[in-house]
Amino acid sequence: MSIITFLSDFGQKDGYVGCVEGMILSLNPDARIINISHNISPYQIEQGAYVLMSYYNYYPKGTIHLAVIDPGVGSMRLPLIVETKNYYFVGPDNGLFSYIFKNEKYQIYVIAISKISKHTSRYNMLSSTFHARDIFGPAAALLSRGENALNLGEPHSQKPVTITGPVWNDHNQIIAKIIAIDHFGNIITNVARSELEQHIKKIDKVVINDNIIDKIENTYSAVPKDALLALWGSSGYLEISVNQGSAAKNLNCKIGQNIIEVYLKDY
Amino acid sequence: MSIITFLSDFGQKDGYVGCVEGMILSLNPDARIINISHNISPYQIEQGAYVLMSYYNYYPKGTIHLAVIDPGVGSMRLPLIVETKNYYFVGPDNGLFSYIFKNEKYQIYVIAISKISKHTSRYNMLSSTFHARDIFGPAAALLSRGENALNLGEPHSQKPVTITGPVWNDHNQIIAKIIAIDHFGNIITNVARSELEQHIKKIDKVVINDNIIDKIENTYSAVPKDALLALWGSSGYLEISVNQGSAAKNLNCKIGQNIIEVYLKDY
Amino acid sequence: MSIITFLSDFGQKDGYVGCVEGMILSLNPDARIINISHNISPYQIEQGAYVLMSYYNYYPKGTIHLAVIDPGVGSMRLPLIVETKNYYFVGPDNGLFSYIFKNEKYQIYVIAISKISKHTSRYNMLSSTFHARDIFGPAAALLSRGENALNLGEPHSQKPVTITGPVWNDHNQIIAKIIAIDHFGNIITNVARSELEQHIKKIDKVVINDNIIDKIENTYSAVPKDALLALWGSSGYLEISVNQGSAAKNLNCKIGQNIIEVYLKDY
Repeated sequence: MSIITFLSDFGQKDGYVGCVEGMILSLNPDARIINISHNISPYQIEQGAYVLMSYYNYYPKGTIHLAVIDPGVGSMRLPLIVETKNYYFVGPDNGLFSYIFKNEKYQIYVIAISKISKHTSRYNMLSSTFHARDIFGPAAALLSRGENALNLGEPHSQKPVTITGPVWNDHNQIIAKIIAIDHFGNIITNVARSELEQHIKKIDKVVINDNIIDKIENTYSAVPKDALLALWGSSGYLEISVNQGSAAKNLNCKIGQNIIEVYLKDY
Repeated sequence: MSIITFLSDFGQKDGYVGCVEGMILSLNPDARIINISHNISPYQIEQGAYVLMSYYNYYPKGTIHLAVIDPGVGSMRLPLIVETKNYYFVGPDNGLFSYIFKNEKYQIYVIAISKISKHTSRYNMLSSTFHARDIFGPAAALLSRGENALNLGEPHSQKPVTITGPVWNDHNQIIAKIIAIDHFGNIITNVARSELEQHIKKIDKVVINDNIIDKIENTYSAVPKDALLALWGSSGYLEISVNQGSAAKNLNCKIGQNIIEVYLKDY
Repeated sequence: MSIITFLSDFGQKDGYVGCVEGMILSLNPDARIINISHNISPYQIEQGAYVLMSYYNYYPKGTIHLAVIDPGVGSMRLPLIVETKNYYFVGPDNGLFSYIFKNEKYQIYVIAISKISKHTSRYNMLSSTFHARDIFGPAAALLSRGENALNLGEPHSQKPVTITGPVWNDHNQIIAKIIAIDHFGNIITNVARSELEQHIKKIDKVVINDNIIDKIENTYSAVPKDALLALWGSSGYLEISVNQGSAAKNLNCKIGQNIIEVYLKDY
């Protein structure tokens, strides 16, 4: 078994994803590629990091998680392999793996391009704009056929790039932001249930664009159709939703643009 | 061979589908998951039912059809396994399986959550908003590895929820509605060719938004580019189309919103 | 190993792709289907041809490339199998395989519908609107299980339909057009780097909607965020881009609608 999951912002109207899949299958015909999403908003590293966090841990031990949201392609950002107890992660060093670094013990390797390109030499030379096809995809394929990370890169002990969490204004107020808006228009914030529980706090009320929500529901259908609500989403992060409607549309919200005030009380 | 098809309204920008796939692969690493569509319009059970009807019968015997369009998630609606001669169907009891109940002999089981959760206990507890990951996906995975439906739920003899067909105004007029608009803008109605043939009727004319179509064509290209036409779609339902254009756009139609009058004559 | 890639303009909100996949798996349960894209703009043969060209050669020898962008479905256009040294291609004779005919030695077969339908007789009869399910998909499935092309069609020696390249106005000016706009809004033209190199030419400047670009960059990040640039895309074709933005949006461009002047100088 050699499962490779694949997350990107490439969209699925072009052949980009198909190129990467072809490259992977050429290097490991037994690889099983699971396309998670290629519709991360272009260049939205935080959204990619959140989505990756939401699924990686449901996969069997040994799965390789390939994730490429890479606005800095061709620049100096490092290409990484991250090894954890159960998984490999392959992608750029730009914050995409922030939740992995937070949740797991890890070892980082910087991919050595020369160690990859010797396996891909029947194809074009390295392109400066498509490292998913030329570096990251091949690295994932080689790992999936049992290659050791040490044969593909160099151990790296410097601190990787990470994204920052919500700001605690004082011990009873958090300034949160929108890290993702899902297909249903649910607004996903960077407030983790687990972080509040560590501080022995629970939510008193949530304020977003002058709307006050003073209760955390358990299900969307706990409120009438089209009513606004807040709940802990299926990944454990605070969501603002509308029952059978789109909260993002109703509240006119965009990723990264709106401020959400979360008031806390003791648990 | 253990094929699981997967239909939903989850979209493919988030990690929702990827979570379900990971959960399935953790329970059955040999499962082959075929993603049919995750772009059913949010909460549109009738469209989901139609799409499911259009493909299920093309799959090999033994295929498990997972379908989750579930506006009532977290409420009292029942989680079902439906067993037919050739297939299993897994999803909520809300009308999504209407065409299956109409076309096939079937046995229904109500999934017993305790029988599922003992297999998924290494993961989070049951979420109230994501039963595809926590109940339906695992049930499909367990069926795909050979588990008997009796070990996953209780036989159920009550009538399941079904959606209703078109209204026969008199024996020569049907009031139809739009159950799906496809990617090309073709308007798909709930008028089945087989139902007319049972009544020994054929179509005399179709009226939609004051447009009269008095002929049923065989191909899109039977009329000039951009002309309106009617034909029997590839699943045997009446379609209103525009050759190389979008009928839904030209006629300003939406699912469930427009009335279509179909006038009949004897065959 | 029997990989079938699948490219179409069917979208992924309906069951169309799922029907074809089911048909393929019914004929060859071991087939591995890789969905490249089903979001080619409806009926855009040139875009489909470009996208097919971008990925086909990355796949393992023996891969079958199924590609269906087929505005003429039901008309007299021929259904083809194209055999090259490493691959099979299956789809309509309408220009979709233009780059294959240009790049590879090939043998064409016209699919004989009677030779396909004997394998698919447990399903509906031939539909006049869905040849991907009824002809092309089954042909790909039969090839993938080792059937010889001669058993599925007749060798064909007439010249296939091809699309035309850019117009050389004189030896230092090309009138190019937009053949694809990718997910990021990058504008892809029909100017091939290899063709310029054959003529020992390089680009002096590019003019699009009164914007003059007088340098070819190596990476998107070579210019400031939101700045316009030109580069050789990852498939070797001239692209007009905006660093971390959408060139198509900024320049208000659509496939096939804008004229791009490319001025050349000696290499």
